[in-house]
Amino acid sequence: MTHTRVCYDCGARTTAPAARCDCGEPLWLDTDPGTFDWDDVSDEPGMWRYESLLPVSRPAGLSAAAGGTPMVSDASIDAVAGTNVHLKLEGEHPTGSFKDRGSALGIAAVARGLAGDVSAVGTVSHGNMAMSTAAFAAAADLPCLVLVPDDIPPERLDVIDQFDPTSVTVAGDYGRLYEQTLERGPDHGIVFLNSDVPLRVEGQKTTALEICEAFAPDTPDALVMPVSSGGHASGAWKALRELSEAGAIDRIPALYFVQAAACSPIADAFEADADEVTRVVGGETIAYSIANPDPPSGTRALRAARETGGAVVAVDDDAIRTAQRALAVDAGITVEPSSATALAGIQQLVERGDIDSDDHVTAVLTGTGLKEASASGTRSPSTDHVELANLEDYLTGFTSTDD
Amino acid sequence: MTHTRVCYDCGARTTAPAARCDCGEPLWLDTDPGTFDWDDVSDEPGMWRYESLLPVSRPAGLSAAAGGTPMVSDASIDAVAGTNVHLKLEGEHPTGSFKDRGSALGIAAVARGLAGDVSAVGTVSHGNMAMSTAAFAAAADLPCLVLVPDDIPPERLDVIDQFDPTSVTVAGDYGRLYEQTLERGPDHGIVFLNSDVPLRVEGQKTTALEICEAFAPDTPDALVMPVSSGGHASGAWKALRELSEAGAIDRIPALYFVQAAACSPIADAFEADADEVTRVVGGETIAYSIANPDPPSGTRALRAARETGGAVVAVDDDAIRTAQRALAVDAGITVEPSSATALAGIQQLVERGDIDSDDHVTAVLTGTGLKEASASGTRSPSTDHVELANLEDYLTGFTSTDD
Ligand SMILES: [Zn+2]
Ligand SMILES: [Zn+2]
Repeated sequence: MTHTRVCYDCGARTTAPAARCDCGEPLWLDTDPGTFDWDDVSDEPGMWRYESLLPVSRPAGLSAAAGGTPMVSDASIDAVAGTNVHLKLEGEHPTGSFKDRGSALGIAAVARGLAGDVSAVGTVSHGNMAMSTAAFAAAADLPCLVLVPDDIPPERLDVIDQFDPTSVTVAGDYGRLYEQTLERGPDHGIVFLNSDVPLRVEGQKTTALEICEAFAPDTPDALVMPVSSGGHASGAWKALRELSEAGAIDRIPALYFVQAAACSPIADAFEADADEVTRVVGGETIAYSIANPDPPSGTRALRAARETGGAVVAVDDDAIRTAQRALAVDAGITVEPSSATALAGIQQLVERGDIDSDDHVTAVLTGTGLKEASASGTRSPSTDHVELANLEDYLTGFTSTDD
Repeated sequence: MTHTRVCYDCGARTTAPAARCDCGEPLWLDTDPGTFDWDDVSDEPGMWRYESLLPVSRPAGLSAAAGGTPMVSDASIDAVAGTNVHLKLEGEHPTGSFKDRGSALGIAAVARGLAGDVSAVGTVSHGNMAMSTAAFAAAADLPCLVLVPDDIPPERLDVIDQFDPTSVTVAGDYGRLYEQTLERGPDHGIVFLNSDVPLRVEGQKTTALEICEAFAPDTPDALVMPVSSGGHASGAWKALRELSEAGAIDRIPALYFVQAAACSPIADAFEADADEVTRVVGGETIAYSIANPDPPSGTRALRAARETGGAVVAVDDDAIRTAQRALAVDAGITVEPSSATALAGIQQLVERGDIDSDDHVTAVLTGTGLKEASASGTRSPSTDHVELANLEDYLTGFTSTDD
C-alpha cells in the first residue's frame, strides 16, 4: 500500500512512490485533515500525538523520542528582537535537530511497506540529516546508505558512523547526486529520504503542528525558520494548510524563511519577485548547513512565504554570530549558526516593519550547538586562574566587582 | 525565606542554607509529600508538573525546557540486556544532560531568594554540570562562577564559555575545592550549586518522578543509573521515598548504581559491606565524567542502594564501550561513555541474577553523545568512495550484497 501524492503546483496526482511531479516540482502526500481539531490529538508521545494527520502510526523504539520539543520565551531575547519571541528548541531531539521528525516518520513508513518493496533507506547529506537518518535506520534495523561529499570533515563523518550505516564519499555535483538518488534509488530497492521528499516533509509537518497547538485556541502571528532545501518549510506550509482546512486555526500564520546572505537563492527570488528559484553560486558562511545553492524545494518554499503573507530574507554572518551569542548569553540556549538565522531574521523583519512589536512569533531553532560548540566563535577571550590556597581572596574579589 | 534541611542519616535539621550536616553527611530538603498522587501533576511543562513536590514553581525562560525527557524501549536492547529495558533519554535537555534538572531548580530557587541573600551562583565541575549551570544562570541573568581543574581540555572550556560565565581554572585538590566552596561561598554571596547540594538534589528528584509516572499505576522493578558524586542517586532515592510515603507507588523500586571499574569507591564499599564510602585512588576510564574518587554523597548513595534492595556495581571499559556501541547501532541512541554504564550494569546484574528476565528496569542514560561523538571510539573502520558517474553501479552492488 502506498499513498496518493499530489503536486502543490499543477495539482497532478500519482500513487507511485515518486518524489517529483512530471512538471518538475516536488510532490507531497495528499492528506485529508477532515475535521481535525486539538481535541483529536492522542496520548502518543512526541510528534505521534497527531497520528490522525500522519500516514503512519508510531512504531516501537527511538521514534517515541521524535518531536515533543519544548518552546520557551525569554524577556532578554524579546528585547533584543523587538517583539514577542517563542523559541522552539528543535535541538532537543535524539540526534540534536529537527531532522529526526522526518527520519522517524519516513523510516516508520518504509518499515511498514508504505513506500513499496524496499530493502534499505538512504540519504544524501553531510550533516544533521545524515546523522538522523543513520540513527533511525539503526533503531528500525534497516540497512542505511549515507552519501556524503568527499570533502566532509572526518570528525563529522565519525558522528554519522557511530550508528554504523554504510557511508560513502561521493565525488561530483551534489545537487545532481541528490536528484539522481531519488530517480534511481527505487529501482535498487532503496528509498532515499532526502530532505524534501514526501515522507520526510510529512514528518516535518509536526514542528508547525506543535507550535500551533501550543498557541491554541489562539494562533501565532508568524513562524520564522531557517530555509535550506525547502523541505522543512514545505512541511510547515502543509501543516498550516491542513489545520486551516480542518478549521483548527482561524487564520494562517505568516511563514518567514531565513537564509545566509552568502548563499540565498530563495531570498533572492523573493526579492526579485521571481516565479521560481534559480541556482546561485554560493559563498562561504558560518551557517554552512543551510547553504544550499540549488534548493530542490526552493520554489515551493517561495510560494509558501508568498501565499501566507510572509517573506524570505537573508542575514549576514555578523548578524548570525550576534544572534547566536544572544541566544547563549541571554537565554542559555546553544544552537548551531544556521539556527541563529531565525533570530537574526526576526530582528530584520521587525526593523523593516514586517513583524510588529506586539506580534507573537515562533523562532524555530532547528539544531543544537552541542555538536560544534568549540568551533562556534563565541569563546570568551580569557580565563582566570587561581590556586586553591587563594580561593578565599578570589571569591572576595568576585562578588565585590561582579554585578 | 529558606526551607528546612534534614540529614538522611542522623536526622538533624536546620533552617540554614547549609549543604552539610554537623555529622558530616549531606543534607537535603525536608519535603512533606502529603497525599501526592499522579492526579496531582500539573499542566506545567517538563519537570515542573511535579510542582507540589518541589520547593519552587517554574520561573520564566529556559527552565520550561528542563525535564520531560522521553523514555523508549528497543527489542534489540532487551535482547542484549536479557530483560525489559526502558531507556530514559536524559540527553534530550538544553545542555544535553540530566544536570539541567538540578540547575533549573537550583537557580530558580536562588533567583527567588530561597537560598538567602545571593549575588551569584557557582559550581565546581569540568563538564556537564559546568555547562548546565552556566546556561541556566545566563537564562536567569545571574552572574555565574565556574571553577574548573587546570588540566581541562580547551575545547571543553569553550563549550562552557559560550554562556559567558566567569570561568576559572583552579590548581589544587578538586575534592577539597568542592567542599571549600560550599563552606565559604555563602559568606561571599555565592551559592555553589555543586552536584550533591540540597537544591540540586531537589531538581534531580524529577528523573525518578517521571519514570514512576510513566509506569503508573504500576511500579518499575528497578532504576539503574550511573553514579559519580551521588547527587543524582540521592535525588532518585528521595523521590522514591516521597512517592512511597504519599502512597503514589505501592513499593519502592530497587536502585542500582553503576561505576566505572577504574574508579569505583561506592561499588567497592557496597561489595565490602562497609558502612561508608572511603576515598580511592582512581585510574583512567573512558567514563571520565563519573570517575569521582571521593564522592561527597557516596555514603548516601550506598545507603540508597542497600535500603531499596539494590546494589552498586562496577563495569570495565570494554563493557562500557560495547554497551555504548549497542545503544548506537541497535537503538540509534548516542550517549557519552558514562551513560552507557547503565546498560553495561544491567547486563551484569542480569547475569548474576539480581535482575530477572521478566523485570522492567529503567536505564537512565544521563547524557548525550553529541558533545564528543568524534572521540567515542565507535568509528567504523572504513568508508567507501564512489564517483557520481558510477552511482548506478554502486547502488546495484549495495542492495545485492547488503541484507
Ligand atoms: Zn506538478
Ligand atoms: Zn547528620
